[in-house]
Amino acid sequence: MKIRLGMVGGGTGALIGDVHRIAARLDDRYELVAGAFSSDPIRSKESAAQFGVAEDRAYEDFATMAQEEHVRADGIEAVAIVTPNYLHHAPARAFLEAGIHVICDKPLTTCLQDARELQALVEETGLLFAVTYNYSGYPMVRQAREMIGNGELGDIRVVQVEYPQDWLSTDLEASGQKQATWRTDPKLAGAGGSLGDIGTHAFHLIEFVTGLEVTSLLADLHAFVQGRQLDDNAQMLLRFNNGARGSLWASQVAVGHENGLRIRVYGDHASLEWFQEQSNQLRYSVLGETPRVITRGCSAAGDSANAVTRIPGGHPEGFLEAFANLYRDFADQIQALKNQQATPGNANLVPTVTDGLKGVEFVEKAVLSSTNGGVWTSLESEP
Amino acid sequence: MKIRLGMVGGGTGALIGDVHRIAARLDDRYELVAGAFSSDPIRSKESAAQFGVAEDRAYEDFATMAQEEHVRADGIEAVAIVTPNYLHHAPARAFLEAGIHVICDKPLTTCLQDARELQALVEETGLLFAVTYNYSGYPMVRQAREMIGNGELGDIRVVQVEYPQDWLSTDLEASGQKQATWRTDPKLAGAGGSLGDIGTHAFHLIEFVTGLEVTSLLADLHAFVQGRQLDDNAQMLLRFNNGARGSLWASQVAVGHENGLRIRVYGDHASLEWFQEQSNQLRYSVLGETPRVITRGCSAAGDSANAVTRIPGGHPEGFLEAFANLYRDFADQIQALKNQQATPGNANLVPTVTDGLKGVEFVEKAVLSSTNGGVWTSLESEP
Amino acid sequence: MKIRLGMVGGGTGALIGDVHRIAARLDDRYELVAGAFSSDPIRSKESAAQFGVAEDRAYEDFATMAQEEHVRADGIEAVAIVTPNYLHHAPARAFLEAGIHVICDKPLTTCLQDARELQALVEETGLLFAVTYNYSGYPMVRQAREMIGNGELGDIRVVQVEYPQDWLSTDLEASGQKQATWRTDPKLAGAGGSLGDIGTHAFHLIEFVTGLEVTSLLADLHAFVQGRQLDDNAQMLLRFNNGARGSLWASQVAVGHENGLRIRVYGDHASLEWFQEQSNQLRYSVLGETPRVITRGCSAAGDSANAVTRIPGGHPEGFLEAFANLYRDFADQIQALKNQQATPGNANLVPTVTDGLKGVEFVEKAVLSSTNGGVWTSLESEP
Amino acid sequence: MKIRLGMVGGGTGALIGDVHRIAARLDDRYELVAGAFSSDPIRSKESAAQFGVAEDRAYEDFATMAQEEHVRADGIEAVAIVTPNYLHHAPARAFLEAGIHVICDKPLTTCLQDARELQALVEETGLLFAVTYNYSGYPMVRQAREMIGNGELGDIRVVQVEYPQDWLSTDLEASGQKQATWRTDPKLAGAGGSLGDIGTHAFHLIEFVTGLEVTSLLADLHAFVQGRQLDDNAQMLLRFNNGARGSLWASQVAVGHENGLRIRVYGDHASLEWFQEQSNQLRYSVLGETPRVITRGCSAAGDSANAVTRIPGGHPEGFLEAFANLYRDFADQIQALKNQQATPGNANLVPTVTDGLKGVEFVEKAVLSSTNGGVWTSLESEP
Repeated sequence: MKIRLGMVGGGTGALIGDVHRIAARLDDRYELVAGAFSSDPIRSKESAAQFGVAEDRAYEDFATMAQEEHVRADGIEAVAIVTPNYLHHAPARAFLEAGIHVICDKPLTTCLQDARELQALVEETGLLFAVTYNYSGYPMVRQAREMIGNGELGDIRVVQVEYPQDWLSTDLEASGQKQATWRTDPKLAGAGGSLGDIGTHAFHLIEFVTGLEVTSLLADLHAFVQGRQLDDNAQMLLRFNNGARGSLWASQVAVGHENGLRIRVYGDHASLEWFQEQSNQLRYSVLGETPRVITRGCSAAGDSANAVTRIPGGHPEGFLEAFANLYRDFADQIQALKNQQATPGNANLVPTVTDGLKGVEFVEKAVLSSTNGGVWTSLESEP
Repeated sequence: MKIRLGMVGGGTGALIGDVHRIAARLDDRYELVAGAFSSDPIRSKESAAQFGVAEDRAYEDFATMAQEEHVRADGIEAVAIVTPNYLHHAPARAFLEAGIHVICDKPLTTCLQDARELQALVEETGLLFAVTYNYSGYPMVRQAREMIGNGELGDIRVVQVEYPQDWLSTDLEASGQKQATWRTDPKLAGAGGSLGDIGTHAFHLIEFVTGLEVTSLLADLHAFVQGRQLDDNAQMLLRFNNGARGSLWASQVAVGHENGLRIRVYGDHASLEWFQEQSNQLRYSVLGETPRVITRGCSAAGDSANAVTRIPGGHPEGFLEAFANLYRDFADQIQALKNQQATPGNANLVPTVTDGLKGVEFVEKAVLSSTNGGVWTSLESEP
Repeated sequence: MKIRLGMVGGGTGALIGDVHRIAARLDDRYELVAGAFSSDPIRSKESAAQFGVAEDRAYEDFATMAQEEHVRADGIEAVAIVTPNYLHHAPARAFLEAGIHVICDKPLTTCLQDARELQALVEETGLLFAVTYNYSGYPMVRQAREMIGNGELGDIRVVQVEYPQDWLSTDLEASGQKQATWRTDPKLAGAGGSLGDIGTHAFHLIEFVTGLEVTSLLADLHAFVQGRQLDDNAQMLLRFNNGARGSLWASQVAVGHENGLRIRVYGDHASLEWFQEQSNQLRYSVLGETPRVITRGCSAAGDSANAVTRIPGGHPEGFLEAFANLYRDFADQIQALKNQQATPGNANLVPTVTDGLKGVEFVEKAVLSSTNGGVWTSLESEP
Repeated sequence: MKIRLGMVGGGTGALIGDVHRIAARLDDRYELVAGAFSSDPIRSKESAAQFGVAEDRAYEDFATMAQEEHVRADGIEAVAIVTPNYLHHAPARAFLEAGIHVICDKPLTTCLQDARELQALVEETGLLFAVTYNYSGYPMVRQAREMIGNGELGDIRVVQVEYPQDWLSTDLEASGQKQATWRTDPKLAGAGGSLGDIGTHAFHLIEFVTGLEVTSLLADLHAFVQGRQLDDNAQMLLRFNNGARGSLWASQVAVGHENGLRIRVYGDHASLEWFQEQSNQLRYSVLGETPRVITRGCSAAGDSANAVTRIPGGHPEGFLEAFANLYRDFADQIQALKNQQATPGNANLVPTVTDGLKGVEFVEKAVLSSTNGGVWTSLESEP
């Protein structure tokens, strides 16, 4: 049985809505049956028609949708929230209160209090909650996590992460380009610019892959484009709970980069490097040996990578497949809950509301560090 | 309205069946409603259940399926044939005779006469017929074709194509591995080993990308693994209708290669290089200028690439998306036919039964050339 | 006429001595005629014999050498100082006082006061002084400098530099390995470990290529190998005089890297990337255009690269050629001085005593920043 | 003691003369003391002055030079012949007859008879003779040879070699460009165009690296530039003495390539790939394992690579160093002969007059194969 899925946001033409829909469809585990696709009711209806959603389940707003789906016998079991950042918290809360599992885009919320509230609500309700830090869905990212978890790198010493893009190198928001407009507006995006949009991905990736915790950070945020209200470049240093050191660079003014997320982890025995634009490969170097390239589907790939590998090595899988992996894992979680069975281990790799909360904390602390002139700032939660 | 799709072959666990199903699903244009998924009736039923196909449309054989679907009001409009090579011709013929459009895996048939018969039948019936030379679905392959068509390379002089793999480096068929077994058995695969399995992809890619015709070829086929009945390595030289020269190397014993399809086209003004394992990139060099890299989704991408681009540059799309592009194009063809409208230009890039026929000719002539000791052999069709 | 050259340090088997000798020989501009090759007089004599230096000019110590060469009619015109860091200052001073031009390895000295003294002495004597920040000799590094100087990148926004190596990942000094021993001993190497050995190269490269000045830095230095007295990993953030931001990472425990010096410079119009291990290439990306690769010897190479290019593009030149470029430039400087002519512009790119002084300041300020807990520290010279 | 070296050809401004001089100088084993640098006596004198050669040893022609150097007590011990192809044979013969060792550029001669005569003369005189197939001097090429010789690849099955350049994509000879003019003129270059200029390098590399013999070849030669008298593109298939198959592509009209010599060797156990433009790396793939990159100077490098490695891994050595390796090896040969000692094994890797002869045979047979329409042609020497 497919899982009945609803969507908030993501009307026709919204890039990220398409991505979520393809991701949900790829493995045939979901059926999109309801949506509040747009704040414009007509556009919401039109979108519904296009997506094969019945007219009576094309809602004008998320609140009505939560309410009505809650009471239907065939109501949705899960909802995907794909609105701009400022519009994550309210719908997430509404659906949780309606007993519906939530898949929410990142960053979870635009302020820490909202994030904490959602976390509490998840604990209280026992519902499932995924935050789509989608890069954690790549097979070679999971391979890296598994290898590090198995101790194949030894003690981790250095973690270098960068996420350069160039699409905001000019004042694109002045042209009214939709993606640029909301992402550079603190009212819609929150306190982080590149920090919230891509820095949070990089931050999640670090902790996901290494299994370490960043205990303090130091950030130098800057907006290079004149008049821009939020950072478009973030330079950061990191310290980890095991004594490791690291740096994180996120930029949306780095000319020549499309989506250059790259993570490198150095242990005292070996190192790993993964680059999102060549996502099927993982560079692996053991001290004193010649460097190797592990590929998705190759004989050296481990269980956690193979669990999310659909086709043999050499035939590239990409971004959509990685995104779909989160949807598939989440489907496994829902199914296990329905069946009152244990979730298969692999399916628990989906980022949770707690990961979402950590991302919001990360944004807040980085902004704080930078505002204070670039000083070391603790990330450890207060008791 | 989604197109009603049936499938022959591709039962649970069959790799290529999964690929076709994902490809059909990705853009939500098809609904899989019938199938003869296996020659084993129980396995066919089980597969149907798993794929969400009603029990009464899980057929025991393709002939029954063609017959019954033909008479149903809600019968399938198209069928995907994903069986081993020797089992392409009979079902293709049966469904064409039942008035059903066909999507057929490559190579089209195992002998020329069968291929010609199918071509004739397509002409006669006016039905649509696609052969899944799937590499032609990659955006950057279409970009290459468009640029060459626009004359951006000048006169083509040299075409170098290679398709190395290593998965048949040992006597894998002796272990009973299913993929290896049928591909190395002339009764199931036809006269070509690596030639038919991957050489035909390479050959189609050459003519698809360059718009040229190969007029003669010279082949040195060899089986390196002892006891193997079909070639596992094919070295070829090519001559083209415009005087260009080229070479084609297909190998399944090339240790260190996963799926290394690569095409390079050199004109008197510029050149292009595309490598399947980094499928989002196209290297472009103009004489006297510095080489550039065109990426899927970048500003230099043209209409035919953009038409099959789902997500922004830098987020890799891969093999499944390319395969899905053929399915989407074919859906557009079917839709246009139903609506008695012209097919959008882009949708006509799907390889046809004639391309399938040319691939079968290619295999026959290459085998002939090699059997004769490696001599130049004409590929031009007799009048 | 060849320039008469002497050498301090660099006896048989000393890697860097060989490098300087090959660099001096490559373009046939120098003749090695004297040396104090080792503090061990016997080894100094043996080395001299091997290098074709007359026995009476194989000195037991640099002081005697400076004195005696000073009074010879055919005394050396220039001396190369290739001893460990702590032994740069005294010989440099001695030869300057003897009226002999100096080529000195980096870092210039182990304390700021010594560096300032040398700078003053150079000014006073009017002698020539080169510090072998050898990476500035690479043609594609000079190409980068020229392009940035010409404004081809627009306003510089971000500068990312890294210099990872892995040869000190273990406690190599415990084994008595000579290169490791002195580099990890503060008495011989000064206050910087990886910072002084490779961080100074990275720092010089930044200012050389961009033409900007680093105005403040923040450093987090760490020794990962237990018991090591000097840093083996340095994480730094940088701020520039034009408002640009940057980061610098130098590490000698970064498993999997041999000599991975890499610089990336992002302007508001374009960016450049150079990687030492593929030194013949320069990646160049203009905003909104496809990225290109400029190669040594290609049509896009400018005057300053071509001036130090010996062979056509596609035939790689490497580290020794880049090192030799500094020697050749320095020969041009000496020749111009002798002829009382202006030095050809290109020859003035050789790093000077002032560059050497800045490197020493860099080490001191980075150590200070880190010792203070990782705080922003000004690099601007006091008036 | 340095070896006294003379040179024929290579006057000021001649690229290849500079290369030979730098190569001879790099390791300080030769002293250039005589030359017939140009057929123009004034230019020969001027060149001599520039190269530090005494005026009385700047000869007007090679014959006089051979004669006079023969009788001098301090006459040259070896001569480097760096003239266009048609002018290799006569000077080589003259110096052999004068008892002087010869270093000759490739191809050895423009006809087979001349090459055989030289081979006989070398045997007769017992003199040393090197042909500068310089790519065999690269450390990673020697590493490949050593690994294959040690059986690390298993039985060799396939050898793919290519050597694409683009500098003759247009009718450059019409402009009078010197390098292009003689290379495209059969009177000066012999019967091979790209075949002789670069195809011979590729051919030598194949046999040098694999230790196999090419027993027959099939060539399709073509001149794409209108009016050009010699081939500018050569497509070839190869068969080897052990049953291996291969292909060789040499082109000087392959737009986008500078000096793209690449060799790939596939055994039944492992494969190797080397690319001249990234000459410090060797890709090594064992069947069933992840591919690795062996670098010059790394722990996996063997004796024959280490013997020609000057500086640590990660600091690239290039074309000039590889060329110098041949000169160094040849110096070792001369020295061993003088000392009546065995030559160190490594020094015997320098290509000999027999290798030169094989290269001339290769050109003749390839031209024959192509002239006959592209037919298999034996390369095995008649008894």
